[in-house]
Amino acid sequence: MILDIINKKANKYELTKEELETIFMGYLNNEVKDYQMSAFLMAICINDMSDSEVFALTDIFIKSGDILDLSFIDEIKVDKHSTGGVGDKTTLIIAPLVASCNVPVIKMSGRGLGYTGGTIDKLESIPSFTVDLSEEEIKKQAKEIGIVITSQTKDLAPLDKKVYALRDVTATTNSIPLIASSIMSKKIAGGADKIVIDIKVGNGALIKTMEEAKRLESLLIKIGTYYQKEVRTVISNMDRPLGHNIGNKLEVLEALEALKGNVKGELLTLSIDLATKMVSMGKGISEEEANKEVKENLENGKALNKFIEFVKYQHGNIDSLSIDSKVYNIKANKSGILKDINALSIAKLSESLGAGRKNKDDDIDYNAGIVIKKNIGDEIKEGDILASLYTNIDNPNFNLDGIFEIS
Amino acid sequence: MILDIINKKANKYELTKEELETIFMGYLNNEVKDYQMSAFLMAICINDMSDSEVFALTDIFIKSGDILDLSFIDEIKVDKHSTGGVGDKTTLIIAPLVASCNVPVIKMSGRGLGYTGGTIDKLESIPSFTVDLSEEEIKKQAKEIGIVITSQTKDLAPLDKKVYALRDVTATTNSIPLIASSIMSKKIAGGADKIVIDIKVGNGALIKTMEEAKRLESLLIKIGTYYQKEVRTVISNMDRPLGHNIGNKLEVLEALEALKGNVKGELLTLSIDLATKMVSMGKGISEEEANKEVKENLENGKALNKFIEFVKYQHGNIDSLSIDSKVYNIKANKSGILKDINALSIAKLSESLGAGRKNKDDDIDYNAGIVIKKNIGDEIKEGDILASLYTNIDNPNFNLDGIFEIS
Repeated sequence: MILDIINKKANKYELTKEELETIFMGYLNNEVKDYQMSAFLMAICINDMSDSEVFALTDIFIKSGDILDLSFIDEIKVDKHSTGGVGDKTTLIIAPLVASCNVPVIKMSGRGLGYTGGTIDKLESIPSFTVDLSEEEIKKQAKEIGIVITSQTKDLAPLDKKVYALRDVTATTNSIPLIASSIMSKKIAGGADKIVIDIKVGNGALIKTMEEAKRLESLLIKIGTYYQKEVRTVISNMDRPLGHNIGNKLEVLEALEALKGNVKGELLTLSIDLATKMVSMGKGISEEEANKEVKENLENGKALNKFIEFVKYQHGNIDSLSIDSKVYNIKANKSGILKDINALSIAKLSESLGAGRKNKDDDIDYNAGIVIKKNIGDEIKEGDILASLYTNIDNPNFNLDGIFEIS
Repeated sequence: MILDIINKKANKYELTKEELETIFMGYLNNEVKDYQMSAFLMAICINDMSDSEVFALTDIFIKSGDILDLSFIDEIKVDKHSTGGVGDKTTLIIAPLVASCNVPVIKMSGRGLGYTGGTIDKLESIPSFTVDLSEEEIKKQAKEIGIVITSQTKDLAPLDKKVYALRDVTATTNSIPLIASSIMSKKIAGGADKIVIDIKVGNGALIKTMEEAKRLESLLIKIGTYYQKEVRTVISNMDRPLGHNIGNKLEVLEALEALKGNVKGELLTLSIDLATKMVSMGKGISEEEANKEVKENLENGKALNKFIEFVKYQHGNIDSLSIDSKVYNIKANKSGILKDINALSIAKLSESLGAGRKNKDDDIDYNAGIVIKKNIGDEIKEGDILASLYTNIDNPNFNLDGIFEIS
């Protein structure tokens, strides 16, 4: 029966919802083995899925676990998701910014697996910050300050989690329908009414081409329509890291600078763009109006104050946020113009410094990371400091190949 | 690295021999996991392999284990392989027939996994028959009577064995390049100089269409050319079972009848055809000459005598070959012409009677099986016995659906 289903997909036939349920729920219950699921996932990667297969799979993922009930909040719940990028600390900027515009932000986030930490890892790098909140605490905080970011107390889409872990080790991550159903099931199980999705494209992202990004965008919107959840998207570049800081505590520091008005460039414009969409959807106002409010609250300090209020509420000590590690400066070995900074290479370097985790139980060094000192287009002289590396690893063996392109 | 190789095949790029070696030898050494290999095998099933990939894979399979040295025999060693069919007892007929024509037959065979037993299982159904021979015994027997069939003492193509077991449970059996490299690696490691391959096509076979059979035929010949091993092929039908008897001891009895000249039809013509090719290749004579010799030795009893000599040499007691089980007769529930006998349904019925094994350590009931009493085209009257079922299972639950088509 399981083999028949795998065979059907291998031979390019469309599967029914019942067939998808049989194999995927069988996998959750350990009746279908890892090696059977990975063969099936590869067949999906190569032969694709129809829209109705994707809708069915999203549904199976959602129903595999808890569904967060955020009905205690009267306002529209808007969530934001990023498909993942190097130096992406936008959540830390957007969440307080959007909350300062009176659109509630209640996020259950995960820890990162891969080159850098997830939002929860970044927040945990703030001394004393608590990410484990009870349901009562979440409700109280949401009502009092309109912003909560907590680790997952509920078991949201556990099947997606199990499938994702297998995809990660079997070269089956690269499938638009699998990516789309994974994202949407987590967001819908997380209680969102409306969703903004930041689709990253480039060498440092899962999605490498604009064509794939467009396909993903269209599929995310279709799934949203199917579930009556409005979805808006942004497609953003991930050939280069986002902002200057990579690494958990370093990214918190950069987010803080952004909220203080000291950051420019792609990180700022993308944050404003995403926040604008969230506020527009949350308040049912035009993006023009929302954009005005977002910019105002960045400038008048309301977003920064909301961030400080939020960190304090979750017991974090934002004032003692210093980097405690050795520092190594990387100097340019020739003069010229800085043409490119490779996101993927930066990510790998960051992991080698201790800022990421390879296995889910690995420890992460919150202090580790990279601060990029130059911008693309800058004139570089031999000996200029290009970046500072922060690490507590003894005798680190840096691989700087292919990171900075100067010519 | 492993993920890069899987990804390359998933994206339809040709792999180098080094890449194939990395992933397949890694699998043999347990560095590559089952779930990674099954994803890779699925990518091969869908995206196919180039000829040079198939040559490389065959080589990797061969070198993964022992290679049988049959140089103690001066004559050309000809082996025969069948891709597997229901009621296929041709080896039992052909081996003594070819040996009686003075072409040596030294076969290391395996036990069956699936609906019916393998050649070794069939021979073991003969009381006292010994399949475990030492190297010295094999040499002595080969020289004295020119025919040996033994279980595998050497570890021939163990990687193929491991990959095959995984393919069996992951719906990745259906790949012409994987089938071709599996067959050829086993035969070449088994010491054959020349090889006759019986490609079965139909509902009871792995290969379902003539198009696939032709592709397999061409690939087998190409691999043979690459290794300078002459390959000849026969494509034979497997929509219907071969002969009348299905089940281990029952098949030995039918083979004996064939050697006595009491069998007609497809089983006889196919056996003669395969034996002719083997004798022609072994002696370097035309198929016309070989055919004449083969037919003569069937008629004059030399083939039968060789079989009796062979069984006796391996301590088997051919005279006490009676079926020891309960018998159930299946009667026609309507009158008409017998239009078809479905091979796959017969195979499943045979397994349910105890004649096959699902897992490699399962016991097999040598007495279990089916004797088909009618031929296609026969006029059937309601109440006529269509088949006799032999089983020792209490209260058997026969599934006769779709076996006999009468209209």
